Amino acid sequence: MKTILKSKSQELVIDTEGPVVIIGESINPTRRKKLVETLSQHNFEFAIQLAKSQIDAGADVLDVNVGYPGVDDAALLPETVKAIQQEVDVPLCIDSPNPRAIESTLKVIDGKCLINSVNGEEKSLEAILPMAKEYDAAVIGLVMDDDGITHDPEKRLKIAEKILNRAVKLGIKEEDVVIDPLAMAVSADPNACLITLETIKLVHDKLGLNITQGASNISFGLPNREELNMAHMVLSIWNGLTCPIANPNKITTMIRAADLIRARDDFALRFTEHYYSMEAMKS
Amino acid sequence: MKTILKSKSQELVIDTEGPVVIIGESINPTRRKKLVETLSQHNFEFAIQLAKSQIDAGADVLDVNVGYPGVDDAALLPETVKAIQQEVDVPLCIDSPNPRAIESTLKVIDGKCLINSVNGEEKSLEAILPMAKEYDAAVIGLVMDDDGITHDPEKRLKIAEKILNRAVKLGIKEEDVVIDPLAMAVSADPNACLITLETIKLVHDKLGLNITQGASNISFGLPNREELNMAHMVLSIWNGLTCPIANPNKITTMIRAADLIRARDDFALRFTEHYYSMEAMKS
Repeated sequence: MKTILKSKSQELVIDTEGPVVIIGESINPTRRKKLVETLSQHNFEFAIQLAKSQIDAGADVLDVNVGYPGVDDAALLPETVKAIQQEVDVPLCIDSPNPRAIESTLKVIDGKCLINSVNGEEKSLEAILPMAKEYDAAVIGLVMDDDGITHDPEKRLKIAEKILNRAVKLGIKEEDVVIDPLAMAVSADPNACLITLETIKLVHDKLGLNITQGASNISFGLPNREELNMAHMVLSIWNGLTCPIANPNKITTMIRAADLIRARDDFALRFTEHYYSMEAMKS
Repeated sequence: MKTILKSKSQELVIDTEGPVVIIGESINPTRRKKLVETLSQHNFEFAIQLAKSQIDAGADVLDVNVGYPGVDDAALLPETVKAIQQEVDVPLCIDSPNPRAIESTLKVIDGKCLINSVNGEEKSLEAILPMAKEYDAAVIGLVMDDDGITHDPEKRLKIAEKILNRAVKLGIKEEDVVIDPLAMAVSADPNACLITLETIKLVHDKLGLNITQGASNISFGLPNREELNMAHMVLSIWNGLTCPIANPNKITTMIRAADLIRARDDFALRFTEHYYSMEAMKS
């Protein structure tokens, strides 16, 4: 299954049979005071700097989230996206819980973006899916619904199916639905990662869709978070994750390693190329 | 399936349903000039230091290999084992391609050790298995035979079955056979890791045995070897590896992460305990 995203002049394929595509997570105000400060002043230099450094580190797509307390992201998100797409030519993933922010951004964005996100709640399906259709965007479907977040992977699969069916009914192409299996903190629930990994496998095996995940929170409350996140990332990829939302500065090497191990990197070209480009940046 | 090893006074269980057991690889002269020098002088201080530091870093069992060009390991291996078991109380894994060295060591070793290794070659089966029976040792079975090393995971499984059947016929308990699926360099064969991982899964699913692996060579000839080895380790554990032979200083955190993700570490106790013991050693 191939999901095609586009920037102004570039096309990017997320392929369930291909190597992993990295969606850079760093343009997000959570724990980034400087981003909040600069964005509040409509100063996009720091956001653009985050965009460029993530691309250098291996990001193929950039998630853009400008949510912080008190923000009017229906105004700020499109403004930020316009500033970023003037400077970098990679597809964007527009990230907001506010449908008005998604819509105002869809109106100004170049190419074909990924919407982050819709979920199985009726309200969300009704607000987001028609926009994805109207503006020809791909969309991330979170496997939660009006009943909340289930612990049962089979039920998470059912929610993924529901989102997919609703999207297809509106004329959205199947390959333009990307599923997020939801990753919760393993410190809160010892089965949290197993539930996520099983959901990934089910969505991969039964629906064959591309799968994304923002998984840094699985290690919340624990030490050695980077290593724990790396282990979870590799196992998620093994089970069917194809386009994680992650910090490429920390995780690209492990992602390239997973692709090499899975024989999706001929002659270890991407693995070694990443090493040499990181070495070059050090010097 | 539970393989029980013993040192002088301790018992260790390698359990296919339990957390991973780490066999420390570092008492091995390959690329350790100082070990060759000290062992040649029958000075065991450095070997003992390697033993203790590996236990501190998370090793449950220690592999002991004294093979270097010109060595008489039938004399040196038992001597080294005697010196080590006077100082540390963990089970040992005696590692030599020389059946005479294995036998002379079995005569002096405390408890119940692991023999590294037998393989599917007729000569090896005939030399090693009777000793494992006579001295009540567990034994690692390498999935290669008189035809060499096959690329076909199903054929590797067949060799594992052959080793198991021959062992059981001699009265060795099924659980005392631990399989090594063989890990080769992915730079030489892009499918090398996939073949190993599939073999691990087959041996786990069909035979239910404990599985070991010395896998640092999968990254031979490539940069970022540590990360590549970590990714391969985590995937091997996911597929059924239960007692890797590895450098605990480099890999214990990832192994503990894999156990935590698989819900084999209640309350993240082992994961956090390892972190704090490493922090304590730093200060």
